[in-house]
Amino acid sequence: MSKAEIGLIGLGVMGSNLALNIAEKGYPIAVYNRTSSRTGAFFENAGDLRENIVPCATLEELVAQIKPPRPIILMVQAGKAVDEQIEVLRDLLQKDDIIIDAGNANFRDTIRRFEELEGSGLTFIGMGVSGGEEGARHGPSIMVGGKEDAYKRVEKVLTAIAARFEDEPCCAWLGEGGAGHFVKTIHNGIEYADMQMIAEIYGILRDGFGMKAGEIGAIFKRWNEGRLNSYLVEITAAVLEANDPQTGKAMVDMILDRAGQKGTGRWSAIEAQMMGVPATAIEAAVAARSLSAEKSLREAASEAYGEPAPAGGTPDAAFIDDLELALFAGKIAAYAQGFAVMAEASSEFKWNLPMPTIARIWRAGCIIRSQFLGTLAQSFEADAGAENLLLIGDFVAMMKEANPSLRRIVSHAALAGLPVPALSAALGYFDAFRQARGTANLIQAQRDFFGAHGFERIDAEGEHHGPWGGKAG
Amino acid sequence: MSKAEIGLIGLGVMGSNLALNIAEKGYPIAVYNRTSSRTGAFFENAGDLRENIVPCATLEELVAQIKPPRPIILMVQAGKAVDEQIEVLRDLLQKDDIIIDAGNANFRDTIRRFEELEGSGLTFIGMGVSGGEEGARHGPSIMVGGKEDAYKRVEKVLTAIAARFEDEPCCAWLGEGGAGHFVKTIHNGIEYADMQMIAEIYGILRDGFGMKAGEIGAIFKRWNEGRLNSYLVEITAAVLEANDPQTGKAMVDMILDRAGQKGTGRWSAIEAQMMGVPATAIEAAVAARSLSAEKSLREAASEAYGEPAPAGGTPDAAFIDDLELALFAGKIAAYAQGFAVMAEASSEFKWNLPMPTIARIWRAGCIIRSQFLGTLAQSFEADAGAENLLLIGDFVAMMKEANPSLRRIVSHAALAGLPVPALSAALGYFDAFRQARGTANLIQAQRDFFGAHGFERIDAEGEHHGPWGGKAG
Repeated sequence: MSKAEIGLIGLGVMGSNLALNIAEKGYPIAVYNRTSSRTGAFFENAGDLRENIVPCATLEELVAQIKPPRPIILMVQAGKAVDEQIEVLRDLLQKDDIIIDAGNANFRDTIRRFEELEGSGLTFIGMGVSGGEEGARHGPSIMVGGKEDAYKRVEKVLTAIAARFEDEPCCAWLGEGGAGHFVKTIHNGIEYADMQMIAEIYGILRDGFGMKAGEIGAIFKRWNEGRLNSYLVEITAAVLEANDPQTGKAMVDMILDRAGQKGTGRWSAIEAQMMGVPATAIEAAVAARSLSAEKSLREAASEAYGEPAPAGGTPDAAFIDDLELALFAGKIAAYAQGFAVMAEASSEFKWNLPMPTIARIWRAGCIIRSQFLGTLAQSFEADAGAENLLLIGDFVAMMKEANPSLRRIVSHAALAGLPVPALSAALGYFDAFRQARGTANLIQAQRDFFGAHGFERIDAEGEHHGPWGGKAG
Repeated sequence: MSKAEIGLIGLGVMGSNLALNIAEKGYPIAVYNRTSSRTGAFFENAGDLRENIVPCATLEELVAQIKPPRPIILMVQAGKAVDEQIEVLRDLLQKDDIIIDAGNANFRDTIRRFEELEGSGLTFIGMGVSGGEEGARHGPSIMVGGKEDAYKRVEKVLTAIAARFEDEPCCAWLGEGGAGHFVKTIHNGIEYADMQMIAEIYGILRDGFGMKAGEIGAIFKRWNEGRLNSYLVEITAAVLEANDPQTGKAMVDMILDRAGQKGTGRWSAIEAQMMGVPATAIEAAVAARSLSAEKSLREAASEAYGEPAPAGGTPDAAFIDDLELALFAGKIAAYAQGFAVMAEASSEFKWNLPMPTIARIWRAGCIIRSQFLGTLAQSFEADAGAENLLLIGDFVAMMKEANPSLRRIVSHAALAGLPVPALSAALGYFDAFRQARGTANLIQAQRDFFGAHGFERIDAEGEHHGPWGGKAG
């Protein structure tokens, strides 16, 4: 009677594609959607895969169709809908059944849900899935958090549907509780930084030189053959080269410059702030999206201040090479920040996150997949004790080569009036990071002056105060 | 029997000074400290002010000594201690008594406490006090949140102890619930940005030219006579010119470059992120403090990458002028961010924050007091409808004059390898803010490509998708 090995609730684009992926890999799957017409339509369009799909009109039927102990994937909207779904499922499920939240949950919700289900006999897995629609259908990167033994029970199907890098599935158990969703959140924060830095480079060429979208696309296409080889650079070239069927103009030129965001980038920044780990390139990327939404304010400001006219001309080969290396250096710094945030969270939440594994499962399937992540995985394995990406052997050499270009590009953009908030945040991070003696001594002096906060001396232990005498003001 | 008009709990530096300030202004005050020896010592050192001070050994005595309805100021450590104190006081106080939390509370705690006391007959006020030790003693800036009628009952004493700008007290009721503590939080966020940008300018002179602390101090002293006139620039000059009594060297050179932070700067950044308002200069300042704490990592990075040697020489007058204007431009952008965060919070929490009043009560008493805030208050009054500081008449003119210097300095620092994360964040914000057409069109194209998120067109309503055809990857 029960033929399905797994269930899935929520047949939106991501859920449908994940279900088809599972069915295609030979695992019979029972599916349910609140609006049952969608379930019907999904089944009808599933072609040959129908033999592995059991469409269910009710949750009771869904549960009945899965062999116990049942793994059930939730792919519903993050937030309240997940809690409501869990509430309903609690009454229908039995001991050892596993609820798997595959949406973009805030990891703090995942921790709470994990704890709420403890003692109920049910198990909860919070699973980050990256790769967009196509990834879900043909192989996403899967970041799993929860009890390791629960993961072991679904490992076969998850690794079967995951992307593969060479022969290795891009799926791993990363730690208990919210570990999977946390890593997915930081993945997305890094993705924001990657995208923003690409957009900044595009802006330098578009607004600084007046280059056309297709010309810029050709540059990204070439870069995709080199050290920047990555999915995001590949699709940047593709979207820049695409024409709008309606107007025949470059498609990107017809798109409004107002970017959306769904929360994960912002969560990365908030968590980094809460833990006191600098993540300025990610923050700059999130802020850039927020500012992009303020279109009318920007128009008013453009009116008030004017904007620099394109210098025109054509960038020479050395400048294009600088742009390439600047983007690469920015990327290194942004990833250093993202991994530093994960390292701190790993210690704070006692997850023991396996950094080389994270880099490995990001090499394929997910949006930030790139050649770079291969280097990162290898370097992490070779230098497991490193506290920051910027201190790992290969990365030191790469950053040494690339950082001069980053500073030339930031300098160029600053003078030309072109915004490069994420690239300059990356540079500021690098330059402050490699300063053995920074300027916080002045800040400590000020704080002691006005608030008697005390400071440490370079030549003695303990807390000291300055000889400020009669206070100013 | 009951002679005191007000009470105060917590005789740390800030609490003691606030109590002396109140007594000095002629308001009899009952004081209590958990460790009663501190109460005794405080009283003994109070000199002539003793006649207005009633030291109390117990909370019961404190309550008995204050004329009802009683206002009681808490100046205990932010966090749990406040909740514990409120819990104890609830049982001792009577209808219409007012508990006033004057610590650096997180405004979300203040909102919660405000709500928890509703219906108890007691009233809660959350009050931000800025000005450090000296401010507390001789006149702080006071930002009050809670019920307006509760404020009216303590207005006389609060305005009496507040700083004065010309004849106007720097104290105001700003809104209900957490309004006062929120505004104080953003005040501190702005303070972080101010201090960090000053430290970056210091770094350019110290590390770029090898200038001595005293020489740099002289420059700040001169700047304090001009448009940068402010408490923070004044004390920067003072600390840079101070010598260490132990070694005879410049005091700042003997101070470890590891800055502390107490949370309010970080809260500013977190709240800005939560509301989706760019506050990148504040974030950069918070991140810089966090990075300063990673001394050993920075030493390792310095070892791995080396550091640029000072170019030496002496900066010429034009360069010094550029530094001054760069700092000024950075300040404008940072304040624009801080006020934008307050505007958003005002609408989200329905506080109806009076922006010109906020600027006015920051003109004296608080750490960020400056001539600049006078201009800000006037401009805000003249242009009440402006949505962003960067769009207010006077500020447009000032930013037009100052921004070229900011870009030259950011460019200089980028090439010289000197970290200017907050200044470059300020520049990035300005340059993105005045771009009528930004580069988020590319980001929307990417998001639609990989996630079918859809985009808006510049020439048609509604959600659209691109002609991406066969997806990459």
